[in-house]
Amino acid sequence: MTTDAQTRTTAASGTVAGLMAQIADTGRDAARGGYSRPVYSTAEQELREWFLDQARQRSLDTETDRNGVLWAWWDAGHGARQDAVVTGSHLDSVPGGGAFDGPLGVASALAAVDHLRHRGRTPRRPIALAVFPEEEGSRFGVACLGSRLLTGAIDPDRARSLRDPDGNTFADVAAAAGLDPRFVGPDPEALARIGAFVELHVEQGRGLIDLDRPVAAGSSILGHGRWRLTVTGQGNHAGTTLMEDRRDPVLAAASIVHVVRDAALRHPGARATVGRMVPVPGGTNVIASSVNLWLDVRHPDDAVTAAVVERIHAEAIRAAAAEGCTVRLCEESLSPTVHFDPALRSRIGELLPAAPVLDTGAGHDAGVLAAGLPTAMLFVRNPTGVSHSPEEHVEDDDAEAGALALADVLEGLAGWE
Amino acid sequence: MTTDAQTRTTAASGTVAGLMAQIADTGRDAARGGYSRPVYSTAEQELREWFLDQARQRSLDTETDRNGVLWAWWDAGHGARQDAVVTGSHLDSVPGGGAFDGPLGVASALAAVDHLRHRGRTPRRPIALAVFPEEEGSRFGVACLGSRLLTGAIDPDRARSLRDPDGNTFADVAAAAGLDPRFVGPDPEALARIGAFVELHVEQGRGLIDLDRPVAAGSSILGHGRWRLTVTGQGNHAGTTLMEDRRDPVLAAASIVHVVRDAALRHPGARATVGRMVPVPGGTNVIASSVNLWLDVRHPDDAVTAAVVERIHAEAIRAAAAEGCTVRLCEESLSPTVHFDPALRSRIGELLPAAPVLDTGAGHDAGVLAAGLPTAMLFVRNPTGVSHSPEEHVEDDDAEAGALALADVLEGLAGWE
Repeated sequence: MTTDAQTRTTAASGTVAGLMAQIADTGRDAARGGYSRPVYSTAEQELREWFLDQARQRSLDTETDRNGVLWAWWDAGHGARQDAVVTGSHLDSVPGGGAFDGPLGVASALAAVDHLRHRGRTPRRPIALAVFPEEEGSRFGVACLGSRLLTGAIDPDRARSLRDPDGNTFADVAAAAGLDPRFVGPDPEALARIGAFVELHVEQGRGLIDLDRPVAAGSSILGHGRWRLTVTGQGNHAGTTLMEDRRDPVLAAASIVHVVRDAALRHPGARATVGRMVPVPGGTNVIASSVNLWLDVRHPDDAVTAAVVERIHAEAIRAAAAEGCTVRLCEESLSPTVHFDPALRSRIGELLPAAPVLDTGAGHDAGVLAAGLPTAMLFVRNPTGVSHSPEEHVEDDDAEAGALALADVLEGLAGWE
Repeated sequence: MTTDAQTRTTAASGTVAGLMAQIADTGRDAARGGYSRPVYSTAEQELREWFLDQARQRSLDTETDRNGVLWAWWDAGHGARQDAVVTGSHLDSVPGGGAFDGPLGVASALAAVDHLRHRGRTPRRPIALAVFPEEEGSRFGVACLGSRLLTGAIDPDRARSLRDPDGNTFADVAAAAGLDPRFVGPDPEALARIGAFVELHVEQGRGLIDLDRPVAAGSSILGHGRWRLTVTGQGNHAGTTLMEDRRDPVLAAASIVHVVRDAALRHPGARATVGRMVPVPGGTNVIASSVNLWLDVRHPDDAVTAAVVERIHAEAIRAAAAEGCTVRLCEESLSPTVHFDPALRSRIGELLPAAPVLDTGAGHDAGVLAAGLPTAMLFVRNPTGVSHSPEEHVEDDDAEAGALALADVLEGLAGWE
């Protein structure tokens, strides 16, 4: 063990549970339960500062790139930042989400660095940790916005004009968070430094429960997309407008919610969800003038996803017309099914021979980055099988098993001098 | 004309349109259109300050009572504040509401004082203007909260624990607005000062359009109530949870929206509306764990209102069970049909012989106050017939006709020395 590494290890090291405990009070949502940490909110900014501080305590070289991605480099002894082995995840959450979706991958990355320092060698390839903003898309509607900007998967003009529920543009919010919104967008130089990206994440299903294992390697991410449906009727007073004089978009939207499920049920394995629905203006004594509802559709076969959305659109027009309303469908994001890099998957299979292989229905930055470089994922058991909910959970022992597995993967991929 | 009154008139007087123009930029809602002025928001507080300032410019004696009702007294020459003729309305709005619902009554009250000053006599009975907080109930869910507290129509403990959409209690918000929440509640001394209350309001229907008249006198307010339905299912991840494993409360809530309309259609004249609906947590990629929806039901016959709600409750339980969900119904407010004081109505009929008589489906503070004292209303024509919407409108000439009518009523009721 080098003295250098030893000193650093003493300066900052901890269990995943210990790291998670440091952020357990940040962004709690008293009304919904769990956590609400929208990107660039006070809560998420606190977590970003916490990550940078933890990285500095580990003598990692930190930077924030022009898309707001945080980087922490362990490249002592290396001149060039290239062919790096990168791990990380996100710190933003859905509204009322669990503690682990995102932060577990970040805390495990920090803990994996500690494990590697304890093992006492210098990585042959540079290692970096990365934190991506707006993975959930819960503030601006586009999931994986940070990795999409970085890779050019979203047009920067479109990103700049995205609005949060309060009407603020992404450009304004990014500027308030210290970015220069003129410079968000594709960053081939930042990307070119990455040789492989491995994201550890809490499992968001029941696969590892059924297999009775703590950690799995990922095989693929189901194709999925988000669409916004805007149903327009005629706003009016709820007390003075007779039932027969109404064009109430809430009734049309309610019919559409059932259209969505019916369309999904026609294709085994398809999932279609309306989890967000906002009548405008949204007063109890007001017939709404319009309703925005958001649609999430996923299937392993991208053609099926397209067919489900097409049917929903056609049936929604019919359902809206029946209420004297109109409907507009707008794609917010679309990601085809991603199969992780076969060579990287095979290498991880050698490094973690006991880990089963699972696919996931959830989207991740690793899926977006997969378009341009080899990516892979590790999943850690979630004993409730529930995610995007305060009930999401990871046992401390499983979290440590995850960080050790990640350390093994980083060590194997980076090689050691 | 007394010199005293003349001076005051010079100090501050204006048309209703001129007064409305002073507040035209306060609380505009760029996202929804129109105005969002929830009670004790920055916007509504600005309007309250504007009113107090306008009253002081007219040498009226202003006070804020312990329920946050603003009063402005014209009682020069009177010792006792009793048997007063009171007029006024509210300054809060529904989300994305029109400019006139509430503020027209306040601006017309100020303009009516100017008219009376021009006429140059001293009222025999004291005249007062009043502004009631949270008439719309758009922040804390209970319409006419200020007048309900004043008259004891709501339990102060219940009021204190009401929460706004951000989870803040009424007690905390009231305290931040400068009230002592320990002292909200029935105020018989404040009430005992009022001899009659006359509220001028923009019409929220098409009655005056059809009659081709600018101003009407009110006869009654339809009975109405608000209920909150909470549908509970199982929150989970939209991508990883199969359709057949779901207990999705959004689907149950969608069925309930149709149940609500079907129940209203069984009774001619009944109105039942869902204009506010909030999935919790409300993320696009999240199966909601619960949905809150608010129900507004109105009918001239209170027994019909009760029957409609009873049927909705029974059918909602059935609809929720079909999705593996449960539902809870909670009454937030209930106001029986109010017939305005016959003697006061008859006197107003003498003072405004040309004004037709209309009832209204909208609730008002005048309806709550009617339980304890003679109240009446004047309505001013709304050429769109639309209210609780940016399309709500009043022509300048009609607004002036309304203020003149109000001045005639105040003059007739107060008598002059």
